[in-house]
Amino acid sequence: MRQFDEHTITEAVIERLAKTQNARLRTVMSALVGHLHDFVREVQLTEAEWRTAIDFLTRVGQKSDDKRQEFILLSDTLGVSILVDAINHRQPKGVTETTVLGPFYVENPPEQPLGADISGGLQGEKLFIEGKVHSPSGKPVAGAAVDVWHSDNEGYYDVQRNDLSGPALRARFRTDQNGRFWFWTIMPRSYPVPHDGPVGEMLRVTERHPFRPAHVHFRIEAPEFETLVTHVFVAGDPYLESDAVFAVKESLIAEFPQMPPGVAPDGTEMKQPWRCLNYRFGLKPIVEAAEHVSC
Amino acid sequence: MRQFDEHTITEAVIERLAKTQNARLRTVMSALVGHLHDFVREVQLTEAEWRTAIDFLTRVGQKSDDKRQEFILLSDTLGVSILVDAINHRQPKGVTETTVLGPFYVENPPEQPLGADISGGLQGEKLFIEGKVHSPSGKPVAGAAVDVWHSDNEGYYDVQRNDLSGPALRARFRTDQNGRFWFWTIMPRSYPVPHDGPVGEMLRVTERHPFRPAHVHFRIEAPEFETLVTHVFVAGDPYLESDAVFAVKESLIAEFPQMPPGVAPDGTEMKQPWRCLNYRFGLKPIVEAAEHVSC
Repeated sequence: MRQFDEHTITEAVIERLAKTQNARLRTVMSALVGHLHDFVREVQLTEAEWRTAIDFLTRVGQKSDDKRQEFILLSDTLGVSILVDAINHRQPKGVTETTVLGPFYVENPPEQPLGADISGGLQGEKLFIEGKVHSPSGKPVAGAAVDVWHSDNEGYYDVQRNDLSGPALRARFRTDQNGRFWFWTIMPRSYPVPHDGPVGEMLRVTERHPFRPAHVHFRIEAPEFETLVTHVFVAGDPYLESDAVFAVKESLIAEFPQMPPGVAPDGTEMKQPWRCLNYRFGLKPIVEAAEHVSC
Repeated sequence: MRQFDEHTITEAVIERLAKTQNARLRTVMSALVGHLHDFVREVQLTEAEWRTAIDFLTRVGQKSDDKRQEFILLSDTLGVSILVDAINHRQPKGVTETTVLGPFYVENPPEQPLGADISGGLQGEKLFIEGKVHSPSGKPVAGAAVDVWHSDNEGYYDVQRNDLSGPALRARFRTDQNGRFWFWTIMPRSYPVPHDGPVGEMLRVTERHPFRPAHVHFRIEAPEFETLVTHVFVAGDPYLESDAVFAVKESLIAEFPQMPPGVAPDGTEMKQPWRCLNYRFGLKPIVEAAEHVSC
């Protein structure tokens, strides 16, 4: 076939992919071509719009470097990242819901003893976080690696600041024999996603704000369980209804109540009011996942 | 709405676009989100595949610069460019079919007198091209600017070579009072699209060759007519059935017959055999296009 029109072109491109040896790649590419062409036909894309799209996508690639990933941000702000997350993590009962990893995770954060203060001297409202990691049936998971990271009082992560000598508001803890972990930090704050690039332009022309509601990130890894990547969001945050990356789930919103001066759960004497988060994390056994994909 | 699942997320993102003031932008973005999400759901995209896609698109952007546009090449090789062309140029009877502009057009090429030899000393089989530019009813279009460009005997365009002192196989002619133009050049050759980047990787893993059949590009501009962008392909080329960018149309394939030594149409005495192309170009009046979009 060498003569195509606006309808037969799609079949022609899919035919051209027929020799792809990797069957999964053939499936994915064929579906991509079908949906991409359907989009162009549905909106009757003009040549000027096509040029704008080419220019936009090129600039998204060129804005990305080793510290910034603008294509992930585009995927996040178009709801694609959370959709991929939802498809790949259909959590059974007793297992914590997942959400996006985000661009500020750093692998192998500094390991800290239980009870450590990870605020690195940054100012903010003191926050005590205690968590319990368990199996779907509620059995404690001991020795799990709990990575935590979150924004500071101004909405910045440590990697976005030039005035810090090392990691702050970022650490790895190990759960004790009861699956518990606890530490001190400061309250996170809502913040805008990076919006000085092409994705920021898209948010502006579609009249969208770039803010994410305040949250603490958790990544929990333990043998025989799927690694859990999630956030816990601060109840009452004004951006919970309109997270720029659509990552909020009801089950991940928690109260961070203000506590009066006195003795904290770890025995620390607090002279000022402080905030507290207590959250339970259910992990999904790997054996169950293996059963799911074995058929 | 702040709790989304793999089905409701699409509606949520489209809702978030509802405040977009530009109605056309709102339509295009909403359709894009719908089709993109449908694609992800249909193939049940895995997280590893998503990361591969992010990395691929990032590299496509980063491979682009002022001399190379890898996103246009991606659009071309996925059949999107020719689809956009088909949608935007539904040609009535008597009007030449369009095809993609391609990445090697240079604006305002050097103007040459009718009959000039534009081969710039490059070796190859001598080719005489004569054309006539007319309205749908066959009336000659005088004074039209006819830009031509094509590959050399090795399949390269002048802009891809470092050993040339100026433009070659590239010029602008003006049609005479009878709508005619003619010039000498050399036969073009089939060639691969640039395939040392991410698009080349895609072609390899989908078992596709990167070749385009031999052709001469034409861009014809005249007052009161839509600018015509097209190619004329060399009949018999082995890649006509499998052009890497899907740009071939039956009506654009022409014989380039070999002629015996003797006197050419412009009076040149040829001692060797030479090739000849005679092609008629029908332009589309702008008034007709205006009528089309006025409803």
